[in-house]
Amino acid sequence: MTTRPEFESQASGLLFPEIREILRTAPGELPELTEELHPADLADLVTRLEEDEIRIFFSNLPVDRAADVAEYVDSSLQAELVTSLDPDRAARIVSAMSPDDRADILAEMDPGPAAAILARIALPQRRETQLLMGYEPHTAGGIMTTQFVTLPLATRADHALELVKVAAADKETIYTIFVIDREEKLTGVVSLRELLVADPTQRLADIMNESVVWVTPETDQEEVARLISKYDILALPVVDEGSSMLGVITVDDRIVVGTGPLHPAGALHGGKLREPVGDPGHPGARDR
Amino acid sequence: MTTRPEFESQASGLLFPEIREILRTAPGELPELTEELHPADLADLVTRLEEDEIRIFFSNLPVDRAADVAEYVDSSLQAELVTSLDPDRAARIVSAMSPDDRADILAEMDPGPAAAILARIALPQRRETQLLMGYEPHTAGGIMTTQFVTLPLATRADHALELVKVAAADKETIYTIFVIDREEKLTGVVSLRELLVADPTQRLADIMNESVVWVTPETDQEEVARLISKYDILALPVVDEGSSMLGVITVDDRIVVGTGPLHPAGALHGGKLREPVGDPGHPGARDR
Repeated sequence: MTTRPEFESQASGLLFPEIREILRTAPGELPELTEELHPADLADLVTRLEEDEIRIFFSNLPVDRAADVAEYVDSSLQAELVTSLDPDRAARIVSAMSPDDRADILAEMDPGPAAAILARIALPQRRETQLLMGYEPHTAGGIMTTQFVTLPLATRADHALELVKVAAADKETIYTIFVIDREEKLTGVVSLRELLVADPTQRLADIMNESVVWVTPETDQEEVARLISKYDILALPVVDEGSSMLGVITVDDRIVVGTGPLHPAGALHGGKLREPVGDPGHPGARDR
Repeated sequence: MTTRPEFESQASGLLFPEIREILRTAPGELPELTEELHPADLADLVTRLEEDEIRIFFSNLPVDRAADVAEYVDSSLQAELVTSLDPDRAARIVSAMSPDDRADILAEMDPGPAAAILARIALPQRRETQLLMGYEPHTAGGIMTTQFVTLPLATRADHALELVKVAAADKETIYTIFVIDREEKLTGVVSLRELLVADPTQRLADIMNESVVWVTPETDQEEVARLISKYDILALPVVDEGSSMLGVITVDDRIVVGTGPLHPAGALHGGKLREPVGDPGHPGARDR
């Protein structure tokens, strides 16, 4: 924190000509040149590249990094860039994206190329993706993700914490734990905060909040946003008619955060910043 | 989750006449009658009460519960309701609110009553409140809170987790840990997720992300909202000129969450819900 470069200006300004040059002359150096940049800044930069430059860009980043950047690009451009790639590489990048982003991108693509990519995705991921693609885009089902933690009522707090530790490596949502009964119905929620404060021998049934705000997959996304805002919810569960959990909606990139209506241009006005906060893995897709 | 009453409609509809009746006839029963309701729903209800009913309402809830409800009311109404109460009771409710809400409410009040309440608040809280009142309302300083966790670079992951457990009982923000050097300068951030995944013997210096998005107290709140949205930040640090942490801004009730511009009326359209997610203590003020 001794020097304070303005990373945003660097990413979209100073570094931009350098990155274009590298893409033309030595694309293998792209990962190193851009490793300090937040994926959101790289995504800004991608929107200013030509089509063939975008293809070279996404062909030369490591798959996980390419997926991170792609998650910050809007879904129509995502579809374009994936279409421009070799289907094997496209499938690997799409596989590394969060389930909801993966479904959105494939839903935006033409059916032919989308099917070519889907066919290259591992079966469990493919099924999950096809399920998510079945929901209308502006509904809870269309924006939910399927990576969350459910634990049975009788789980002890200390055991639950161990299980959350394991889940932390690959689940998007770990700060809210969803408690289910024997029929796998959602019966309560426990925040990770509450789990940390609890007596280790307590059961989730005794710690949980039984009153849960929930929506169905058909709930409109504006209603989802209103509920998240009104009740200060970090992870809103989406349940089916039998109260089984289908997914979770978190405050992420598809739910715009603003102080009232945002300026559409989103112009910069002087906030200094360095670089990113978040998981190196999937910063956009997790509950940080 | 077997029955699914629509709590919002109950709170602002069915229960409303019952609550008015109780306020007139047996206000001591108010806590029990309303204990199932989310503070956000009670706050909706408060906006529809008459002035004397509001006074009875806030005089009869337990102090912590009254503070929870007050945090969901807009700050001009907060100021009104606090002014209508006996100063001792008002001071106890205001003390139980989060530091940023406490400062906002007092800044909205006339200087006389505000001073009367301030004089009744414990000295450390009073100093903190006066400091926060010094910032312009629409800046990072005006919306930040002062309850966050900082830990030194050399802290081991297992020790850090123990310290976060202790902090979980009273700090608003625990899902992001701010790492400071010997001069107490902000040098990195670690998410609670990363701490859970880390080897217990690792030092924060080795786990932390050194690149931190930060703002100064003067940064405009629209820029704050843009940064939180762009980088998917859960807790944005506010630092002074010497890189010392002054506060944290979280995605809470003052940062509106919506899918683009929200309908000003916030009309209901069919999302079913039960009750609240969040800490029983200060659901609105914590990182849930």
